[in-house]
Amino acid sequence: MKNAMGELAQIERIRSGWGGRGGRGLTLGIGDDCAILRPPAGHEVLVTTDFSLEGRHFRRDWHPPESAGHRALARGLSDLAAMGARPLAAFLSLALPGDSMATRAGRQWVERFFAGLHALAGEHEVPLAGGDTSESPCGLVLADIVLVGSAPAGCALRRSGGRAGDALYVSGALGGSAAELVELERRGTQKLRGIGQADAGTAGKHPQLYPQPRIALGQALLRRRLASAAIDLSDGLSTDLGHLCHESGVGAEVLEAALPIHPLAAAHPERALALALNGGEDYELLFAASPSIKVPRSLAGIAITRIGKLVRGAGMTLIDTAGRRCPLKPAGWEHFAASSSR
Amino acid sequence: MKNAMGELAQIERIRSGWGGRGGRGLTLGIGDDCAILRPPAGHEVLVTTDFSLEGRHFRRDWHPPESAGHRALARGLSDLAAMGARPLAAFLSLALPGDSMATRAGRQWVERFFAGLHALAGEHEVPLAGGDTSESPCGLVLADIVLVGSAPAGCALRRSGGRAGDALYVSGALGGSAAELVELERRGTQKLRGIGQADAGTAGKHPQLYPQPRIALGQALLRRRLASAAIDLSDGLSTDLGHLCHESGVGAEVLEAALPIHPLAAAHPERALALALNGGEDYELLFAASPSIKVPRSLAGIAITRIGKLVRGAGMTLIDTAGRRCPLKPAGWEHFAASSSR
Repeated sequence: MKNAMGELAQIERIRSGWGGRGGRGLTLGIGDDCAILRPPAGHEVLVTTDFSLEGRHFRRDWHPPESAGHRALARGLSDLAAMGARPLAAFLSLALPGDSMATRAGRQWVERFFAGLHALAGEHEVPLAGGDTSESPCGLVLADIVLVGSAPAGCALRRSGGRAGDALYVSGALGGSAAELVELERRGTQKLRGIGQADAGTAGKHPQLYPQPRIALGQALLRRRLASAAIDLSDGLSTDLGHLCHESGVGAEVLEAALPIHPLAAAHPERALALALNGGEDYELLFAASPSIKVPRSLAGIAITRIGKLVRGAGMTLIDTAGRRCPLKPAGWEHFAASSSR
Repeated sequence: MKNAMGELAQIERIRSGWGGRGGRGLTLGIGDDCAILRPPAGHEVLVTTDFSLEGRHFRRDWHPPESAGHRALARGLSDLAAMGARPLAAFLSLALPGDSMATRAGRQWVERFFAGLHALAGEHEVPLAGGDTSESPCGLVLADIVLVGSAPAGCALRRSGGRAGDALYVSGALGGSAAELVELERRGTQKLRGIGQADAGTAGKHPQLYPQPRIALGQALLRRRLASAAIDLSDGLSTDLGHLCHESGVGAEVLEAALPIHPLAAAHPERALALALNGGEDYELLFAASPSIKVPRSLAGIAITRIGKLVRGAGMTLIDTAGRRCPLKPAGWEHFAASSSR
């Protein structure tokens, strides 16, 4: 943890605002060369890192600053959720454009970014235990979030445990995040200002701006030993199911009629299916369970829907509403690739 | 760990090339939502994150790609060294310009970046356990390195343990890294091609291009209970000693005549002292030890020099070769701030 610039004041502010709240497993937070964590006895340590780069993962003209902060943390928390882990601490490396500290508007953006991140961290009781700061070399906000969690040794959910015959389930609804992104692009920035984090909730009103990582659900799956394999839906069902199948050495059949389509996606009937299959960033959980296990219709307050099953072989098949079988290809997309790479 | 782009092939290559070597404490590496680490029984977990952003922390026209990769990992390893930790695993988030994969020269740069990182990781037996990849939103190489290590519970060296009366020591020599940077700037890129990682060694021939994190020294300090406080010299002695003093609640006196000046800095007599005090990026260790403890002149093969002591109060004082006392102000600098921010 280096502070190349004179940003100690910034770090101090983060420490008092967020790090101070931590944490069961946090022995030493910001202010030394490393943070020190003490995982519960008998637990393993889980680690994940995720970029949130302006122009790739968010846009300052589409995402309110609270959303950018919320989403950065949500990406990492969702990875912990997928393995049933309990969050121990977060680390944020953040590079800010020079004007972020020099102008009032810049400072406000940063304040609101942290407010968004802070609110979600508070919900999940995750302390900020460190990170790095720098001036951005290119005028864009560059963030990398690290989440450290723990799970009882040998019990973390993995992508690789699925077996042919297992039933496939998803939490919540699909396609909402991509559908809201379409809407953001259409409306542009002016209409955004009214969308505060207070609207976020778990009701999924703003699945693109304020996705809800399924931490409690992941822990319930682990604790109740319901899932044989699990992954979070970050790149889209078609892509992430492909990962689960690849790691488990199986294929899959998905029933179109069973897919829980998010209302925001259902509002575009002609593309609802594509949004649900390939839209990505829903941050719901996809998991497999042995057919002998009775999976409740709701877990940790989230609806659970059976959408198909794992099968022998390597391919994925979509069975449409008329019963026809067609190949399901991984087709998650890179949301901003065309519009903002510079 | 998300793979927004089609860079799974890249990740697979890293996995086979590096991740495969790991590691005592690594239960599950690249290929799931999180990596799983199992620290030794009775150990705490240490975590540090460090940006390596092109234009801030390295320049493609000054640093050979092997150096950029080496330096990214060295920054994180040095933080573990400062606390006496044993490395468990590294995580790399890496955003590459679009042409990095599309052109032969781009691919070569990436190959050589990983070769540099890989070589240092091999020396310290650190597996790459995960990370994130993305296309860079601004044409610059953007890296964030995360190091996870372990230390016996309650034993990690901290900045905060120093007491008035403790003697102050540094490892190796100071100012070499900044002096070599001056030289790189003078010569520009043409002459760089000949400086391979084979020249790096521990002899400190290229302290800017291939700094050597003092992992073995940090572990020796911890094991032998020699140090009351420690920090790595990333921002320069004046700045990092300031951090140690601040966290320990003491002041310090430094003897100019005692400072071990690196030969590359000594070659510039008029600025050797400034380079040694403020140059930064030497990645040596600065530590305090009770006056009752006999500190060897060499530890883990690295020369150890007594340079002063901790005193009551809050200020830092430099005692020059004539015995005059002058205030020592934190004056680490941001190497590329003027020359490369865009």
